[in-house]
Amino acid sequence: MELVTFKPIGIIHSPFKDRKGMPIQPTGGKGVEGHIDLYEEYEEGLKDLDGFSHIILIYLFHQSHEYELQVKPFLDQQLRGVFSTRAPKRPNPIGLSVVRLVKIEQTRLFIKNLDILDGTPLLDIKPYVPEFDAATKVSIGWLSSYIDTASFKRSDHRFE
Amino acid sequence: MELVTFKPIGIIHSPFKDRKGMPIQPTGGKGVEGHIDLYEEYEEGLKDLDGFSHIILIYLFHQSHEYELQVKPFLDQQLRGVFSTRAPKRPNPIGLSVVRLVKIEQTRLFIKNLDILDGTPLLDIKPYVPEFDAATKVSIGWLSSYIDTASFKRSDHRFE
Repeated sequence: MELVTFKPIGIIHSPFKDRKGMPIQPTGGKGVEGHIDLYEEYEEGLKDLDGFSHIILIYLFHQSHEYELQVKPFLDQQLRGVFSTRAPKRPNPIGLSVVRLVKIEQTRLFIKNLDILDGTPLLDIKPYVPEFDAATKVSIGWLSSYIDTASFKRSDHRFE
Repeated sequence: MELVTFKPIGIIHSPFKDRKGMPIQPTGGKGVEGHIDLYEEYEEGLKDLDGFSHIILIYLFHQSHEYELQVKPFLDQQLRGVFSTRAPKRPNPIGLSVVRLVKIEQTRLFIKNLDILDGTPLLDIKPYVPEFDAATKVSIGWLSSYIDTASFKRSDHRFE
């Protein structure tokens, strides 16, 4: 299979300079503020985005350089298949977060509820639309025993 | 900025052989069945995924070879900034869909509620977790006037 090549469209800035001690999901990053600096060449693509309260960020886990197919996620002590986790070390280290869009000034997007490392290369921005993106009658497998701790659990060194 | 390279982990199969006449979002693909054939080397990574009812697929819009920063989305007749739309032609042609996971047999994942073109290269699978992925008190900008038509609207040739 051919390789696929992308070019970052900007950089995400956050208070998290270190992979340790971060919230492990946006729920845990509630209230945390940061911003995106989009590269100028893409500015025109931001038109109309300010009407959306939430956006989906697709980005590179730029500090993940290898992976294993089974991992111990932050929330658990058992080995889980990597695709059943949100661990940053994955075959393609692509991250996904739904964040609050506060305001846009030229190419700077002010965002909130961040669980993203400072300096993260951004690959795409999509409007978050509950009718498209929110499922109902959901079951969450192994995570169901741990979900209540996700909002205060912090990352440790296991994926470094 | 350096380029980022990914390697597809499998192929998504669906009844949609043509970019025209497709549902434009999973809401419109309700009930549509398809499957993913994951490449064998990644099989171990599927462990525990069968406990999840919904998964997030991140894939390549493999038939999108160029882009414009302002587009007329399927739902609208006005030019919108591409990042405020889900149009397939984007600076990085990355697609995102939340689908129902029906069952897994070895490296084949049977999925439902598809809005994805047959033959699409898959980049990542993540478990869908409402606590992480579903936002509340959401506003959806220009889309709010059109959202009711999203489930029956079909694609046309505009992004070919």
